[in-house]
Amino acid sequence: MKAGPGLLFVVSGPSGAGKDTLVEALRERMPRLRYSVSATTRAPRAGEMEGEHYFFITRAEFERRMGEDGFLESREYNGNLYGTPRDYVERTLADGYDLIMKPEVNGALRIKEAHPGAVLIFLVPDRFSNLRERLLARRTETNEEIASRLEIAHQEMKFIRNFDYIVVNEQGRSEDAIRDLQAILQAERFRIHRYGDDSLKNIELT
Amino acid sequence: MKAGPGLLFVVSGPSGAGKDTLVEALRERMPRLRYSVSATTRAPRAGEMEGEHYFFITRAEFERRMGEDGFLESREYNGNLYGTPRDYVERTLADGYDLIMKPEVNGALRIKEAHPGAVLIFLVPDRFSNLRERLLARRTETNEEIASRLEIAHQEMKFIRNFDYIVVNEQGRSEDAIRDLQAILQAERFRIHRYGDDSLKNIELT
Repeated sequence: MKAGPGLLFVVSGPSGAGKDTLVEALRERMPRLRYSVSATTRAPRAGEMEGEHYFFITRAEFERRMGEDGFLESREYNGNLYGTPRDYVERTLADGYDLIMKPEVNGALRIKEAHPGAVLIFLVPDRFSNLRERLLARRTETNEEIASRLEIAHQEMKFIRNFDYIVVNEQGRSEDAIRDLQAILQAERFRIHRYGDDSLKNIELT
Repeated sequence: MKAGPGLLFVVSGPSGAGKDTLVEALRERMPRLRYSVSATTRAPRAGEMEGEHYFFITRAEFERRMGEDGFLESREYNGNLYGTPRDYVERTLADGYDLIMKPEVNGALRIKEAHPGAVLIFLVPDRFSNLRERLLARRTETNEEIASRLEIAHQEMKFIRNFDYIVVNEQGRSEDAIRDLQAILQAERFRIHRYGDDSLKNIELT
């Protein structure tokens, strides 16, 4: 029953759910938890560090790795490619560290396909959230962008049953959500399917 | 997404795993958690309170209730009948309280059959436990009793995959086991299958 490989936690959900803040808080509190660094073809911004915020690579290198099935999932956004490097994920888990990442919903589903042991957590922004109102209130998107985001959210909700957990991040109560996430990260370690037949033999009692 | 009915937690495992102490500690720390009181036909011992330690009933009453399917599980031990009253369990859960019980392994499996939403936790006494050595060391059983207990434990281990979690209660580290159990009790609330389609509609975002 010794500690096996680390666990892969995927936090996703609609925009504005507070993923960044909560994942940051978890990393501070859980020393075993590593953050999955994405690769990207976009240029580093001021203050961004290679290997901490992103692995910065060329488009040619990115495409070469894609051809080798080197990403658990990848996507194009604003003309740049982003991907989750398979080798980094597998090495970190094999070393016994837990890993957390926060892709959008489609990415989360593709990661579950590639890594069936991954734990998918759907983060919901508020108990009675209404995305349209939140988007209108912050006045940063055009009507067209809002319509597009609503359509994406609508599509994403169709896949909510593929997730393992739903956690609500109520406004002003993020400490509750952090505790809920910590409980999930801790409890998953004890799920029966985490124990191989070999480790169960070690508790064979006779 | 309002709070639904309470959850049913079943802690079981081989003798000497420390179920009593750990369940008592959980009850002290988790105010929402109620303990499932068994019914029995045996006479109360000094200090035992009706409705707190047991519901004390006559054999005739016990058998009448059995005939009405009034127990989630029942068993005979030392000439006395013991059972988990179905109405108490269902009323407590409907009132929104979580419920914990600590039956032996066969009882746990029967409770899961009657209540598929129950969470079964297998408590293991030690990381490298050896039941035979523990039984020999405490010198309270005859060789025949030890053989019988080993046979029971051997039978019980065959059903370990029917449990949802395994938690190890290492000697001198019961505080760790209590924290592990607390994490499981908290995390289970957020499992996707706890959310009915109706509650998911409330987080429909568009």
